[in-house]
Amino acid sequence: MTEQHHLAFGTRGRGSTEITADIAALVARSALKAGIVHVFVRHTSCSLAITENADPTVRRDLETLMQRWAPDGDPAYRHDLEGDDDMAAHARSLLTGTALSVPFADGRMLLGTWQGIYVFEHRTHGHRREIVVTLLG
Amino acid sequence: MTEQHHLAFGTRGRGSTEITADIAALVARSALKAGIVHVFVRHTSCSLAITENADPTVRRDLETLMQRWAPDGDPAYRHDLEGDDDMAAHARSLLTGTALSVPFADGRMLLGTWQGIYVFEHRTHGHRREIVVTLLG
Amino acid sequence: MTEQHHLAFGTRGRGSTEITADIAALVARSALKAGIVHVFVRHTSCSLAITENADPTVRRDLETLMQRWAPDGDPAYRHDLEGDDDMAAHARSLLTGTALSVPFADGRMLLGTWQGIYVFEHRTHGHRREIVVTLLG
Repeated sequence: MTEQHHLAFGTRGRGSTEITADIAALVARSALKAGIVHVFVRHTSCSLAITENADPTVRRDLETLMQRWAPDGDPAYRHDLEGDDDMAAHARSLLTGTALSVPFADGRMLLGTWQGIYVFEHRTHGHRREIVVTLLG
Repeated sequence: MTEQHHLAFGTRGRGSTEITADIAALVARSALKAGIVHVFVRHTSCSLAITENADPTVRRDLETLMQRWAPDGDPAYRHDLEGDDDMAAHARSLLTGTALSVPFADGRMLLGTWQGIYVFEHRTHGHRREIVVTLLG
Repeated sequence: MTEQHHLAFGTRGRGSTEITADIAALVARSALKAGIVHVFVRHTSCSLAITENADPTVRRDLETLMQRWAPDGDPAYRHDLEGDDDMAAHARSLLTGTALSVPFADGRMLLGTWQGIYVFEHRTHGHRREIVVTLLG
């Protein structure tokens, strides 16, 4: 059996927004006893990731590393139509992923204590981001 | 319910090949109303990724960055049995992934406008690459 | 239909442990004819990955590259509560992923010949790591 939901979030520019509670709410009201919840972002310049949810400096440090992995405005880029953050955003999306999935049972995701689900906006400016949530069980 | 298909592609050496239409065709003729389509490559030196499908310079720039993330012939590598591109290919496969999954409904994948599905060949020479496509719903 | 199992592994510090046989055993005794097996680690400082299973130098070289991608004790890190390996571990987990999924049919995973499933421990010291395995079909 499958349940599918469409969500949208407004980001406020580069950085991460926790959406664990939004996904948990869909799992809590599911008719499915156990399965996986699949989360998919319909864009190539933001991404979804599970990371540490206690100390916000973790996510700040991840941004520091992303700037090394895929710098803004690198002179080697050929794709720069939308500015210095354009190609950097696509590359960060590739490294961190457009989908994630978490097992659930009895109305709760089986996340570890320190795991949170985040949307990472990789563009400098905020965007409206569409997410599809599919529960399979 | 599950549907499973086996595909094979011949790559022409390092670079990306779009397979969105191949996956879309399997979804279009599925008996499942909604769910996810899971795509899996049975190799450790190529990968599957969703990225921007409009401007081919995006994928060229991704190759530029991959050469930094996992250079060919790095002197630190111990694994070089099959040449300079061997270990680089395994590392790029690790970073970008051997599986991806996309939600679908009513015969269509719920991809965003600018999202395409690509096989990235990380070896210098072309290979025959086997893919397993599983529809769950 | 869904089947769900809980596993735990003791790691011995940074490095990789193959768990292909553990997952294969759950697939072998499944009542499901075909589908995907989803593997999820409930932590943010270790990860799951599919990589080459023949030559152990591949995994040694991956560790060499991970030390470049996310060095221990980098002076730019703000998050270092648990030591030099703390933030490096979270970043490596982000790059390599907390979940993976493999198609199966007739009691066998459809892995390629050279693909193995590994837990990568990114902390210097060993930890008890919990894994949730969900079979969907």
